[in-house]
Formats: sequence, structure tokens, C-alpha cells
Amino acid sequence: MSQFGLLPGRAWVALIRELLRPPHYICIRAVGSHNQGQRSLQVAEAVSTSQLKANQEKSNCIIKTPKGTRDLSPQQMVVREKILDTVVSCFKRHGAKGLDTPAFELKETLTEKYGEDSLLIYDLKDQGGELLSLRYDLTVPFARYLAMNKVKKMKRYHVGKVWRRESPTIVQGRYREFYQCDFDIAGQFDPMIPDAECLKIMCEIISGLQLGDFLIKVNDRRIIDGMFAACGVPESKFRAICSSIDKLDKMSWEDVRHEMVTKKGLAPEVADRIGDYVQRNGGVSLVEQLFQDPRLSQSKQVLEGLGDLKLLFEYLTVLGIAEKISFDLSLARGLDYYTGVIYEAVLRQSPNETGEDSLSIGSVAAGGRYDGLVGMFNPSDHKVPCVGLSIGVERIFSIVEHRMKVFGEKVRTTETEVFVATPQKNFLQERLKLIAELWDAGIKAELMYKNNPKLLTQLHYCENMGIPLVVIIGEQEMKEGVIKLHTVASREEVTIKREHLVAEIEKRLSDS
Amino acid sequence: MSQFGLLPGRAWVALIRELLRPPHYICIRAVGSHNQGQRSLQVAEAVSTSQLKANQEKSNCIIKTPKGTRDLSPQQMVVREKILDTVVSCFKRHGAKGLDTPAFELKETLTEKYGEDSLLIYDLKDQGGELLSLRYDLTVPFARYLAMNKVKKMKRYHVGKVWRRESPTIVQGRYREFYQCDFDIAGQFDPMIPDAECLKIMCEIISGLQLGDFLIKVNDRRIIDGMFAACGVPESKFRAICSSIDKLDKMSWEDVRHEMVTKKGLAPEVADRIGDYVQRNGGVSLVEQLFQDPRLSQSKQVLEGLGDLKLLFEYLTVLGIAEKISFDLSLARGLDYYTGVIYEAVLRQSPNETGEDSLSIGSVAAGGRYDGLVGMFNPSDHKVPCVGLSIGVERIFSIVEHRMKVFGEKVRTTETEVFVATPQKNFLQERLKLIAELWDAGIKAELMYKNNPKLLTQLHYCENMGIPLVVIIGEQEMKEGVIKLHTVASREEVTIKREHLVAEIEKRLSDS
Repeated sequence: MSQFGLLPGRAWVALIRELLRPPHYICIRAVGSHNQGQRSLQVAEAVSTSQLKANQEKSNCIIKTPKGTRDLSPQQMVVREKILDTVVSCFKRHGAKGLDTPAFELKETLTEKYGEDSLLIYDLKDQGGELLSLRYDLTVPFARYLAMNKVKKMKRYHVGKVWRRESPTIVQGRYREFYQCDFDIAGQFDPMIPDAECLKIMCEIISGLQLGDFLIKVNDRRIIDGMFAACGVPESKFRAICSSIDKLDKMSWEDVRHEMVTKKGLAPEVADRIGDYVQRNGGVSLVEQLFQDPRLSQSKQVLEGLGDLKLLFEYLTVLGIAEKISFDLSLARGLDYYTGVIYEAVLRQSPNETGEDSLSIGSVAAGGRYDGLVGMFNPSDHKVPCVGLSIGVERIFSIVEHRMKVFGEKVRTTETEVFVATPQKNFLQERLKLIAELWDAGIKAELMYKNNPKLLTQLHYCENMGIPLVVIIGEQEMKEGVIKLHTVASREEVTIKREHLVAEIEKRLSDS
Repeated sequence: MSQFGLLPGRAWVALIRELLRPPHYICIRAVGSHNQGQRSLQVAEAVSTSQLKANQEKSNCIIKTPKGTRDLSPQQMVVREKILDTVVSCFKRHGAKGLDTPAFELKETLTEKYGEDSLLIYDLKDQGGELLSLRYDLTVPFARYLAMNKVKKMKRYHVGKVWRRESPTIVQGRYREFYQCDFDIAGQFDPMIPDAECLKIMCEIISGLQLGDFLIKVNDRRIIDGMFAACGVPESKFRAICSSIDKLDKMSWEDVRHEMVTKKGLAPEVADRIGDYVQRNGGVSLVEQLFQDPRLSQSKQVLEGLGDLKLLFEYLTVLGIAEKISFDLSLARGLDYYTGVIYEAVLRQSPNETGEDSLSIGSVAAGGRYDGLVGMFNPSDHKVPCVGLSIGVERIFSIVEHRMKVFGEKVRTTETEVFVATPQKNFLQERLKLIAELWDAGIKAELMYKNNPKLLTQLHYCENMGIPLVVIIGEQEMKEGVIKLHTVASREEVTIKREHLVAEIEKRLSDS
């Protein structure tokens, strides 16, 4: 368990505490943070071999999906595809190209990219050959792709699963396997133009999915670091204080201050100076204010960050989304690789709307600028600045799914347009001949896999499955070279010439 | 390396042979077979820790994807999405529901499902908690889903990646990570109706992808086993002889016979009896022939198999695909779980068409009936019979990609419809305002992330990217409340009122 070496002091304390009471399993708690902006206790289990054997013997008879993962039922698939369609069509509307990378990467490709979160990376067993890990996000593989292929400029989107060994039970809509939808712009451009487009995209997608009122918090890593320095935070404590600050969306300032002073050993007066700033948020006016701030205006870093934010707000106003954006000094973001502007979209629903308290909804999209990541792969090469965003589809999925339950919305799990039925016994071959015609004409059609199904059973199936049309064929129709076309909703029935069937069906489907 | 225990005798021989010469790595060779019908030597590497360290140090500076995996470039993504669209729309045309399962399963979910191939399963490292493996195909997870949710009847499709630790270099279009597109029908129905639909689907997809002439070989596990028994093959040798037979698409009968007699210790006269049968193939007439065969007609198993094949051919004739199907006694299929009819689609291209010899193309789709698999998960429960198929998209992908190279076909990697350009300096804000209107109207639009791009650069970009329309805005146009609409192909340019822009663009896009 070499990963123990990676644990911060407080995790060791927690570990020892766990060891003192008879454990079902040993928990190593470490504060980490989520690419999609969530915060939570994260748990890595360590099980003694004896316990492992026990578990194995138990689970031999258990049929389940691995902890923190799930199957998606046909109903859920329909919802997820609807969400992914909205997201991807927006990415394409902004001229992004598709890209795919393997589910796993060389272990060293992922190391030193995620800070404390590295603890949550799934490694593959060493079965000989290369040491591999499942990807933790889509950003590092993208940077690896750019570096590997010496690509200096690219606007790409990537939809794919990522894997994180987190405790899945803490927040709903949180899993160990989940989808990410990423849009990134790599390349050297004039300042804040791609950054503004990323925020525009987040607005389009959240509006498009009708998730209700939302807000995008914006900050800049340079402002955070410069502010810390100006307040007298020792550089060694930057990351730790950052993750405390990050909890301000879940904890009161008093509690965060207490954590910084007692747990992280920050001088109270330094904490208070920080408190002055991190409790502020607003629009471009706050940017102007901070330009005048005696302490911050001394920091070159801060001024750079503020300058870019000012320009960003100009562009956001032109794009018509400025009122959706809030400059928020408490936004810190977890991942190591951000270097400039960072942002995070949160929903502003009232609890009763979703049935969950609004805090727990957390962010549904997030991202930022990472100008150093590609360079980490080939330092020799001049760097490729990048900015991007990631849509938290799983979170959105559970919101949409929950609403559909609340409003009792039904979804069709198939797209079948026509059902081929018969009242006749031993009429399978005629049904097969007919349905083959429909399939070959590109019509979505089904029949019952029975030699002698009851007509009522067939019609009931259509009603249950929401199939709009039924073609009914029997001996009489065969003789006369006609078929009956039955409309399920209205139950009206017309007799038409067999040779007109396909044309008639196509007409009705295009009308509806 | 407990998996050594799983190795057949000949693999041990190979292993020792490898050990006798100074190895770069140790190879364990084992003959296995591929769900998509391929045969090849499969290699599992075993690397000494010292070598491992060496590799690590080396690879620290290497940027690459893991062995046997690849990124898909935007060009490749377009091709793959085109293929997947054709496949999935066919599955939906046949009324299938979507389903998704996790990338990994509990290790025990996958054990004893794949025979020798189990050697090729990727295990995850034991980081505490459950023992996990990456899925090897989509069939076992489907069976696990049915058993877990007590589903007795379902028609589903599943498109997803699967992972196999095979030697990726042997056949082109063969990778350690690859997509599978599966369609399966679970449930108790009248005989051979779902089976016939599966073959119809394979025909529709291969035709739809315009892969040229093809043939679907069909056989039945009961006929193979019954034939072996009738010829005097000891039951203990069934699987071994099966995999020899399976090579008849790559080796001559003489070589296969030699392998069976010398390597697998089969009596020569038994081998000759088998040879009598496995070299035969044909249509329903061969089925009739075997009904009369003095030896085979003694086997209840064989008669069951033949009876079903006879019925199957009736349905295939009605569906109009009988001439694409060949009853082929040499088709055996690798996987353990098949219990009845099995099939495999092969392309019949002439070598010059694809630039690769036609043998190496191998199968592009395959499947069969597996009535026992769901029962393996909860024996208490009565069984759920299943039949299905898997499309070998990677193989198809490399064929399509190769042809596009040959015919010099170009693909657009973005869907951008309109580019917003300007001849003016310092006109970024006007461009942003304009493009926001287009985005909000659902029009796919791009602009250059520069404050002062050259007009020529902007127009060249459109030509290179195949963007059909350019909106040009400058001071003059601003004054007059108009914009210029430039058609890239014809280079003709019209001036239209700014308020008519969106409508005009939509008109032109729907016309084209």
C-alpha cells in the first residue's frame, strides 16, 4: 500500500483512529475535490487478505455490479442519450472536432497531475508488460494526445467514461464510473476569446437542458495565489488553504476559518485577511474594486488575473451572458493543473423543486485554463495553452431523472413505428415476408416471436410500447391483395392495397 | 501468475521453449479464439520485476498510448460514427432497447465463461474492496443483468468498448481495446424465429455498410458435438478438436488432420471420419443429406440441430436471405457459452479490392445461441434462452478506412455551417455579437480567436475546413445595417439586411 505515503497528516490521524476500533474495513480519509467542483470526504479502502478471502467467498454467490457503478436500464438510456445529444450538438455548434482516447493510460501519464486526488486513480493489475491506470478525467489524455502528436492548435470535444475510486454514497448522482463531456480549445490566441466561448457554451447547455436558473462562478488561480501571498499565507500552505476555501459553498466562514487556524496552523490575523476577500463576490464592479485594493494591487499576479477578468466580462456582455456570471473569490477548484481563469456552474433551484436541498445539487459544469499541462509531457517543446470545460452529465442525469419521476413523465424505450400482426393461426411466414419488406424499406418494425399469437395480445403490446401503427394481415387480406392499417391511438382501421403499404406508412409517419 | 495453472500442455511446452532462449520477455502461447470469429496465437507477457523497473525508467520519457490501444483522430471519429450510426439504426429498426453496463465487473462474474480465453482478461489491481476485471465482451454482462434483475424477456442492443490482452500486431484491425456492437434477444419463444431475425440483421448491416459480397456460415453446437461423438472422439477431446476444426478457414484439411492426430492424439481413422464431414458445406440440401447420414442420424443431438437448421432455412428463404447463408460443418466458434445455432459472416472480397489477402479479412460479424449463460448466475431460477450477434466494428473500420485512403475520400471533421469574418481591424466585439445571434438560433458557427485576423486567412480557413458560408461584417455594413453573405464554393457574395440574416442562412442550408 505504497499510496499511504501520499497521505496528508490528518489522514494518518484518521487512519489510526480507525485502527483503534474493530474495523469492518480500514478507512483512509483524505480531503480531496472533484473535477466537477464537488467536495467530499473520500475513502480508499484497505482490506486485510483474510478479510479479502472472506469477501470473495461471500461474493461468489452475489450477483451485482461493482461498488459505485450501475447498469443503465433502457428507460435511463433514453434519458442519458437525450442529455448527451443536447451537449454534443452544442459542442458541434461551436465547431469542435471529435476525439477518442483509450480507457486506460500508462500509469506515469497520470502521475503528478491530480494532487491529492491521485489516491483515487484505478490501477490495472500488473499482468506483465506496461503498468496501466484507468483514466481519471478526459483532460490529461487530451493533453497527452496534443503532446504526442505535436498538435499546437485544436478545438475538440470528447464524451467518455472516467473512473474514480471515491466513496459513491455521499452525494447522489456521484459514482465511481461516470460520463464526462469535455470541450477544450488548445492553442495560442488573443486573450480571453476562447475562455469567453467556453462560458457561452456552458450557458447554452444548461439552458438547453432546462435545468432552471443557474449561476456561473468565475475566479482566477493567479488572483487566489496572489491574494494568499498578499495576506501572508506561507507558500507551503497554499494548496491546503485552497481546499479549505473551497468548502465555503458547504460551510460557514466561521467553520472554514476555524479549520484553517486549528487544523492547518494558519495565523488568525492571516485567516481574517483572507476572510475579508473570500466572502466577496459580484460582477465587473468587484474587479474594479480589487484593482484599487491597497494590498492586492501590489501583486503582479493579481493584476494579471484582474486584467483578464475585466476583458472577459467585456466579451461576456457582448455575448449577452454577463448577468449569469459572478466573480467569486471563494471559488478555488481542486485540480492542480489550472493556471488562470476557473469557473463552475451551479443551479439555483429551490429545494422543493428537486426534492433535495439546493446545496447538495452542487455544480453541473466546470472548467478553466491550464496552460502548463501539455508542457508537462514534453518540456522541450514550447507550451500549448488550453482552456476548457466539463459537463457533469451524471449530476444532470439524476436531476432530470428525478424530475421525470416527479412529473410522472413516461419515455418510450424503443422507436418501433409499425407492428406486424395477424388474427390467423399458422401465418408466421406471411408475417415474416411482410416485415422483411418494411425493414428493407427502412421502417422500424416488430412482430411477435410466436407461431400463433392472439390478436389482442399483439394489440396490447403495441399500446404498452407506444407503437403508433399496426399492420394486420390475414387470409382474407392475402386473397384480396390488401392489408389492414390500424392506428393504435384512434383505433381506426383502413384497408389499403398491399403495394401501397410502404408509401402509406411513410406518409403517416412523416405527418405525425 | 496463478493463471499459469490454466495453461494447456502445449502452452507449457512453448513456455519452456521460450525460457531456453534469452528472452526479452516470456511468452505464453495458447491457441484461443475471438468472439468476432478470429483465430490467432495469443500472447500473455510475463516480465521479471527487474525488467519491469527498466521499462518504467525507459517509459518515463515516452509519451504513448498503452500497447494495443490507440487514439481516434477527428477524421477517424467521423468514419467510426458513420459506421456506428448504420449499425445502431439497424438495431433500432428491429425494436431493440438500449442498455449500458459498467466497464468492469466483479472478477467472479467473468470466470468460467470464456474457456482458454480467460487468460486474456484484464484484472484491476487490488486496491482494497472488491476484485474487479474489465469486461471481455458485452454478452456476459448482459446475462448478468438479466439474472440480477430477474428479466425473463428482452431485446436489447449495446455498443461499448471491451478489453482483451491479446497480441495486437497479428491481424490488422485487431486491438486490445475495441468496440463491440451487440444485439441480443432473450426469452422463451417459438423455435428459430429470433435466430432468423439475427441473421437478417447481419445481412442488413453488412449490406448497409457496402462492404461488398459476403457469406454467413451457419452451424450448430449440437451437430458438432453429436458428430464428434458419432465419429468416436473421446468427450475429453471435444474442445481441443473443436479449436483444430476452427482453423479450417486458415489451414488446409491435411494440416488440420495432422494437428489433430499428432498434437492432439486423435486416432487417424477418427480424424478421417471427421474430415468426411467438416469439409462439407452447402444449403438446406446438405441438411437433408445429413438427415439420411447413417452415422449422424443415430445422434439425437444431431437430429435436433438439423431440425432447427431446416426450420431456420425456411424462415431465411421467406426473409429473402437464404442465398447468403451457407451451412458449414467446419464452423465451430471459440466461446464456451454457445449451446445451439452459431454463425459467422465473412467478406468475399478479392484481394486487390482491399489490398490485403482475403483470408486475413476474417469475419465481420458473428454470434449464436447461448441458452445456459443466464442460468449460470442463478441456477435456482429457470433459465432464460438467448440468441444474439456481435458486429466487428474495428475490422469494418479498418476496411472502410483503407478504402477511403484508396479512393482518396475526404471527410469533414467539423459540421460548421457559417464562419463570421471581417476585413476590419478591432472588430472583435461586433463579430462576437453576431456569432452569438447565430449560436442562439442553433446555427453552427465559428470565428477566429484573434483581434485582427486577415480576411484572406479567414476565407482560406473556410475553404480548408469545407465551411459553406461566410458572413462578412465591416464598418460599412454596420452603418447600413446589412451584412455580406459569401458562398465559399461559388465565391458569390450578396448583401442582405442584418435582420434577415438568420432566416437567409437557414434557407440556404435547407436548400443545400
